[in-house]
Amino acid sequence: MNVEFINPFIVAFTNVLTTMAQMDLKTGKPTKKSDSIARGDVSGLIGMVGPQVKGSLSITFEESLALDIMQNMLGEKPNSINDEVTDMVGEIVNMICGGAKNELAENGYEFGMASPIVVSGKKHTIAHKVDGPKLMMPFNHSSGNAYLEICFDK
Amino acid sequence: MNVEFINPFIVAFTNVLTTMAQMDLKTGKPTKKSDSIARGDVSGLIGMVGPQVKGSLSITFEESLALDIMQNMLGEKPNSINDEVTDMVGEIVNMICGGAKNELAENGYEFGMASPIVVSGKKHTIAHKVDGPKLMMPFNHSSGNAYLEICFDK
Repeated sequence: MNVEFINPFIVAFTNVLTTMAQMDLKTGKPTKKSDSIARGDVSGLIGMVGPQVKGSLSITFEESLALDIMQNMLGEKPNSINDEVTDMVGEIVNMICGGAKNELAENGYEFGMASPIVVSGKKHTIAHKVDGPKLMMPFNHSSGNAYLEICFDK
Repeated sequence: MNVEFINPFIVAFTNVLTTMAQMDLKTGKPTKKSDSIARGDVSGLIGMVGPQVKGSLSITFEESLALDIMQNMLGEKPNSINDEVTDMVGEIVNMICGGAKNELAENGYEFGMASPIVVSGKKHTIAHKVDGPKLMMPFNHSSGNAYLEICFDK
């Protein structure tokens, strides 16, 4: 997995959060190991399929961060994760993947995006079942943490 | 969403469970509504992308059923959901989606499958974020229930 492919996702993540929620998340240190599993409260997942690409993306948010993003984007803060929050997570993940897709297309990597799936549940875990390496990138904010995971079979 | 597209997934589900785990699951009544969300303990998810298709598939298993499938497939039954169980769920979902894909390809529906993602966590919920209809199909067994959800943007 080369940096050329991963960076657009990291850039899109920080851009979308800055633009949509006026929140600057600090990019942590990426880890690349087989047992890295994000634990969070709400996650958006998108499958990616193309001639050179077969993989999946997940972005997991801690509840406190997800609710503060809601507050900043929509001016209202629910007490817990509800349908509006999962809608927002689905849209954010779609925007991030779409942003990365556009940049990657300019470099000759074409892929299609599946429709987003949003999972919620306290401390759920996510495991990407691929042959290739998995990369996890933490993002930190005073409101809470988020974890971007990305992996490819090829 | 037409029956021609859904049936291959239902057939593949029962075929895979019968063949791999010698378990005959009873097909329940499909429901098609916007708020149908499966609640389960371990779920396998796959994104689908093609010229006429953009959607996602999820299959959610109750823990008791997932562990009995492990017992039947591999001859060992863990006490709870572990990495071997999530591996198995990823493989089962891959086989089911692959089986349906092959049959649909014969009818002119071509799509690519993203790599599977497996989510675990007690009573997590799954929401497919699509514009099109979502179909949920329950499967019942004395060991526990499973829920197949499928939806398409187009």
